[in-house]
Amino acid sequence: MDIKAIARNARKASIRLAGIQSEAKNHALAGIADILIQKKDVILKANRTDIKRAEQENLAAPLLKRLLFTEEKIEEACKGLESLIQLDDPVGATLSALELDDRLDLYKVSCPIGVVGVVFESRPDALVQISSLCLKSGNAVLLKGGSEAGTTNHVLADLIAEASGKAGIPKGWLGLLETRADVRDILGLDDDIDLLIPRGSNAFVRHIMDNTRIPVLGHADGICHLYVDRKADISMALKIAIDSKCQYVAVCNALETMLVHQDIAEDLLPKLRAAFEARNVEIRGCDRTRRIVEVKPASEKDWKTEYLDLIVSIKVVADMEEAMDHINHYGSGHTDVIVTGDRGRAVRFMDYVDAANVFMNCSTRFADGFRFGLGAEVGISTNKIHARGPVGLEGLMIYKWRMMGNGHVVADYAGRNAKPFTHRKLQKGFERE
Amino acid sequence: MDIKAIARNARKASIRLAGIQSEAKNHALAGIADILIQKKDVILKANRTDIKRAEQENLAAPLLKRLLFTEEKIEEACKGLESLIQLDDPVGATLSALELDDRLDLYKVSCPIGVVGVVFESRPDALVQISSLCLKSGNAVLLKGGSEAGTTNHVLADLIAEASGKAGIPKGWLGLLETRADVRDILGLDDDIDLLIPRGSNAFVRHIMDNTRIPVLGHADGICHLYVDRKADISMALKIAIDSKCQYVAVCNALETMLVHQDIAEDLLPKLRAAFEARNVEIRGCDRTRRIVEVKPASEKDWKTEYLDLIVSIKVVADMEEAMDHINHYGSGHTDVIVTGDRGRAVRFMDYVDAANVFMNCSTRFADGFRFGLGAEVGISTNKIHARGPVGLEGLMIYKWRMMGNGHVVADYAGRNAKPFTHRKLQKGFERE
Repeated sequence: MDIKAIARNARKASIRLAGIQSEAKNHALAGIADILIQKKDVILKANRTDIKRAEQENLAAPLLKRLLFTEEKIEEACKGLESLIQLDDPVGATLSALELDDRLDLYKVSCPIGVVGVVFESRPDALVQISSLCLKSGNAVLLKGGSEAGTTNHVLADLIAEASGKAGIPKGWLGLLETRADVRDILGLDDDIDLLIPRGSNAFVRHIMDNTRIPVLGHADGICHLYVDRKADISMALKIAIDSKCQYVAVCNALETMLVHQDIAEDLLPKLRAAFEARNVEIRGCDRTRRIVEVKPASEKDWKTEYLDLIVSIKVVADMEEAMDHINHYGSGHTDVIVTGDRGRAVRFMDYVDAANVFMNCSTRFADGFRFGLGAEVGISTNKIHARGPVGLEGLMIYKWRMMGNGHVVADYAGRNAKPFTHRKLQKGFERE
Repeated sequence: MDIKAIARNARKASIRLAGIQSEAKNHALAGIADILIQKKDVILKANRTDIKRAEQENLAAPLLKRLLFTEEKIEEACKGLESLIQLDDPVGATLSALELDDRLDLYKVSCPIGVVGVVFESRPDALVQISSLCLKSGNAVLLKGGSEAGTTNHVLADLIAEASGKAGIPKGWLGLLETRADVRDILGLDDDIDLLIPRGSNAFVRHIMDNTRIPVLGHADGICHLYVDRKADISMALKIAIDSKCQYVAVCNALETMLVHQDIAEDLLPKLRAAFEARNVEIRGCDRTRRIVEVKPASEKDWKTEYLDLIVSIKVVADMEEAMDHINHYGSGHTDVIVTGDRGRAVRFMDYVDAANVFMNCSTRFADGFRFGLGAEVGISTNKIHARGPVGLEGLMIYKWRMMGNGHVVADYAGRNAKPFTHRKLQKGFERE
């Protein structure tokens, strides 16, 4: 089947999936967990095929590690499915209820977006996670995984389709796109895909954003800042800086640039240098930094760079205003942190720093869907509309306006003898019966 | 000042405007109302200049009427400002509050999107309405009005900037783009504009959507349907059909296509034809329609056409499934209505019809921000993300994740001896003090 037909089928399935009740969706999620356990030998065998080919093609060790799907990972995926079953159905929630007039009631009711396209890295567990989030939220999904995981993904998608089909979920709701050309083709499917979620390198996400009319949810850069205020606890600042930079260096919520208030620079910078150097972190500093500690110079380019590596840039600032201006100019709107003992100053920082995540006295690394209590996440967004920061089920929802009338016409509410609207808030939600 | 500089200033102003307290914004809105009354002679004079030029250029009568700004319209605009002052500040609302661990609290707090670009028709009252909605919601705004209203818009923008500046609103928050080339230029300003709202013709909105990376909120087509179910009250169906089609024919929420259940077609269609013909509405029918009443034939093209005129297309359908399939295939996701005496069937229609507004037993014409009780509207959206249907203040908002810690680092929550998260819902909102 070609990609357009797969997308068309997903659109058709999405219409019916939107009206499927919670029990059927939860039943399907349980069935998926069962089949993954039952057929684990088939899955592991498929994964060995992928791993073998990847080894022959000399795939780098970290990529091989992500590609590996073990019995333990299958069990983790099943635990994820169990916890998803426990969550409330995000579909059908009444977001507002208003009486416009006698027997004319308006309800804003949550519903799925429709068809979500996800381009994801070579991690087979991501396929299970993303497709189950889409199923729970009533969305059809088109999946394009890394080609390295092709055999595993194919088996997983087939099993998920089989188990969900048995539970009464409309066929075609999950489409796996398998050929090389598919990523390019997917970008033109704006009639049948409502939202694209690319997970991958910055360059890849940017490429997608530049080449499609479909709304894209995601982040290109993650240039995260840590501003150490003059009212900061120095040891706390050091602890947070090390965690933010070193706890996991290759991820979007890792620290890239530190901004240090001039009043504490002479105290903090030598300690910071010692702590970073003990962890093999290269420091690149502004002129004022280099007057206090001997480090490499930072250039204009450093302030714009997401290192994703053991490198940090440091700038001494005259005041919090300069720090905020720097962040708003060079930042990517992902995660920015202030370390300060003054709550009022932290609130001001949060008011004026234009980022998805603005934290006081904790690590940038907390910016994550699981830590935020969202359950699994489909990604992190630096968009300014729809969903921002870690995105869980909620980011896969939109709403419809449902109005229940009894022959009401606008002509009665217009002109000289116009009836007024009551616009009275209703306490009840939308009732299906 | 060139357009890039105006946009850059708006970006800078938006950062400060995001932190401006409610009182200052309401004070500014009151100041704008005052200055519009004080300077009404200047405004009316500017408008006479525009009207005179438009008359010389033989602008069509309906356009002239929209362009006209009278003392009455100034008073209406001031009433709109008064009611906006009464509304709660949409900025700073706590959308969720969660304890992650002892002294580590996460808040999802509403904030402005940033800089909104609005391209609007030649209606000077639209300038007042849009800029005041943006001010209340803490957004900077770049306005591009129709050139016919250039003189009036210039005077209005100056007065609004003057009054808001006196109330302490950061300069540059309102930018008026005045040259012809500006619409094209605005599309490339994706660094400094977060959301574009084009109001105007379908072709114009589509052109904008196709030529910018900036997210666009709006609707291209408004192909609205009325499905008359076999369980419908015939006289109610007639009343709603006439109101939906004729109450205001040139707007996006007017009816374009009727779908009639075969079981009631023989009863309904002759009455429908009489009612429409009495109002000079041309009917184009499918083959089955034409077997019952003598009307012009509808072609495939008719089902895809937004007439915005005294024309309606009618199709007889075998059942509700066929009606819903037709709507999901040909509709534009704007407003679709079912007339039926059976609430369960209406709910099913609402579940499966993929549109922003799905109504039972009332006119399509109710799809409107004022009627929906949203106060003023910035537009109607057929997007599938962010905001859908009539969009008021809420559509101009997004959120930040604000986290308050006390030296918390992720390393403590990872690995073998990982601390668990409490993920306990907090009852309190985010506190500024």
